[in-house]
Amino acid sequence: MPTPHIALLVLDLAGTFVFALNGALTAIRAERLDIVGVLVLGMFTAMGGGIVRDVLLGSLPPATFSDWRYLLVAAGGALLAFLFGTRLDHRSFSINVLDAMGLSLFAVTGALKALDRGMSPLPAVLLGTITGVGGGTLRDAIIGRVPSVLSSGLYAIPALVGAAIIVTAHELGVATLPGALVGASVCFAIRLIGIRYDLNAPAPRGAPPG
Amino acid sequence: MPTPHIALLVLDLAGTFVFALNGALTAIRAERLDIVGVLVLGMFTAMGGGIVRDVLLGSLPPATFSDWRYLLVAAGGALLAFLFGTRLDHRSFSINVLDAMGLSLFAVTGALKALDRGMSPLPAVLLGTITGVGGGTLRDAIIGRVPSVLSSGLYAIPALVGAAIIVTAHELGVATLPGALVGASVCFAIRLIGIRYDLNAPAPRGAPPG
Amino acid sequence: MPTPHIALLVLDLAGTFVFALNGALTAIRAERLDIVGVLVLGMFTAMGGGIVRDVLLGSLPPATFSDWRYLLVAAGGALLAFLFGTRLDHRSFSINVLDAMGLSLFAVTGALKALDRGMSPLPAVLLGTITGVGGGTLRDAIIGRVPSVLSSGLYAIPALVGAAIIVTAHELGVATLPGALVGASVCFAIRLIGIRYDLNAPAPRGAPPG
Repeated sequence: MPTPHIALLVLDLAGTFVFALNGALTAIRAERLDIVGVLVLGMFTAMGGGIVRDVLLGSLPPATFSDWRYLLVAAGGALLAFLFGTRLDHRSFSINVLDAMGLSLFAVTGALKALDRGMSPLPAVLLGTITGVGGGTLRDAIIGRVPSVLSSGLYAIPALVGAAIIVTAHELGVATLPGALVGASVCFAIRLIGIRYDLNAPAPRGAPPG
Repeated sequence: MPTPHIALLVLDLAGTFVFALNGALTAIRAERLDIVGVLVLGMFTAMGGGIVRDVLLGSLPPATFSDWRYLLVAAGGALLAFLFGTRLDHRSFSINVLDAMGLSLFAVTGALKALDRGMSPLPAVLLGTITGVGGGTLRDAIIGRVPSVLSSGLYAIPALVGAAIIVTAHELGVATLPGALVGASVCFAIRLIGIRYDLNAPAPRGAPPG
Repeated sequence: MPTPHIALLVLDLAGTFVFALNGALTAIRAERLDIVGVLVLGMFTAMGGGIVRDVLLGSLPPATFSDWRYLLVAAGGALLAFLFGTRLDHRSFSINVLDAMGLSLFAVTGALKALDRGMSPLPAVLLGTITGVGGGTLRDAIIGRVPSVLSSGLYAIPALVGAAIIVTAHELGVATLPGALVGASVCFAIRLIGIRYDLNAPAPRGAPPG
């Protein structure tokens, strides 16, 4: 069955690309880093979730390092953001949309990869969620922000729902690609609705007792 | 010899539970996060040390993901803290006590797991210490605090002592459970004495040089 | 061929030693931590890059834990910095020089270890770079600074160049030790020239948008 695997690879590379764009744009906006900083943060955001997933699965070295396509796509996305960042930046919505796309794609491909490596459903859902939120969480940790996964109620939940859909579809014997697309779409929709109607959880308030 | 392993599992789950409570209470107090943030930080604190240990041992996927009891206990502890956090919070001592319990239990079970995987005594002591301090260190790193392990003199030391006791007991052929209980108790006592008599190292002072 | 391996070990231990000194001096200057904090940050800086490399290579447990010489050298370097830190500190240049030495040595030994484990050239260059920048990046992340690798243009680049030189030399069949020394020297020179002539990228400026 080569089709599901090729589809999985395409979705995974698409997630890598949008997260690289997102991480690089974040670097440009939040920290005004130079080209190396933008490339590093873009590639780190793009590949972080997949690397964490592969480490936890014991699938080492991670696909990122044994398959040059991930490196190329991540570097290309980050470079594109560096070159055209100021124009993309005019649409202030774009960072969030790219982040939601990466979240959705990685939640689904991460869960599928976990199933593929023989994990049972519950760990597979969790690993899909971790793959989805991992890149952005590492991005935030490295630039010293409280990660979205902690401060925003509708960040981990859509990833969890998307991963649960594809795992359920897999267990029911549904073909991989339709299940993956439905899972990713539902995750994406929940995430965007959350942003659009400001369903984010309240930001940290009040002095820490310290 | 199933008894030591069952005892080890019970101690490990107990450590998971108290660290989940601790991480979730920290989230409630320090950052006033919503339910997802509290659950994520609680589970991250509870499972972080064990995940780091299993990654370093090459014991992948980590027990956390292949054994649903860890997930369940971590989620349960974090949920409990979310539901009853304000009441627990009245005892401002409780976060530190829970942290000391998790530190003690994980230092011992981490060292035992390292020995079980064929590590020699010195690395086993170090891995036990890392397992003990890992969850709290990741918790602090993700919310942007300088980790206790750096700023507090009596945080890594008790874990090191506890791990050294169980490793020495193991090398001398002492039964696992008594050795584990003594190691954990000594670690817990040193940590609490340090807090009680303010034997913490001085907090960071003075301006960093540029 | 034992010679290249012994040379590799010596270079790797030298990198461990200078990074331990550097991390411990950073702890003393930036945070005024106690002895445990200084030792932990020194050892973490010294061993972090190699541990990340070994995790990504699936070479577990990491050499650090199975070979006590790394532990001993890392602890020795950190202890030395604790004892004589104020004197070393008079030379404000020393932290940067030590960091450049660790960067250079680890970029080269990391790339060689990746080749040794059968990685192809591109991933080997990347893993060398990661080994070089890893320790300092973890050091900065744990004390809450924006890592040098993001904010300084000539930090990742010299490591990349040094790793590329040794990998190219290896592919061309050049003996390991000369290739390693040239790679490390070039990396070291670029890094120091960058510091000397202030070729660092501009520090983050401007208010982050919300």
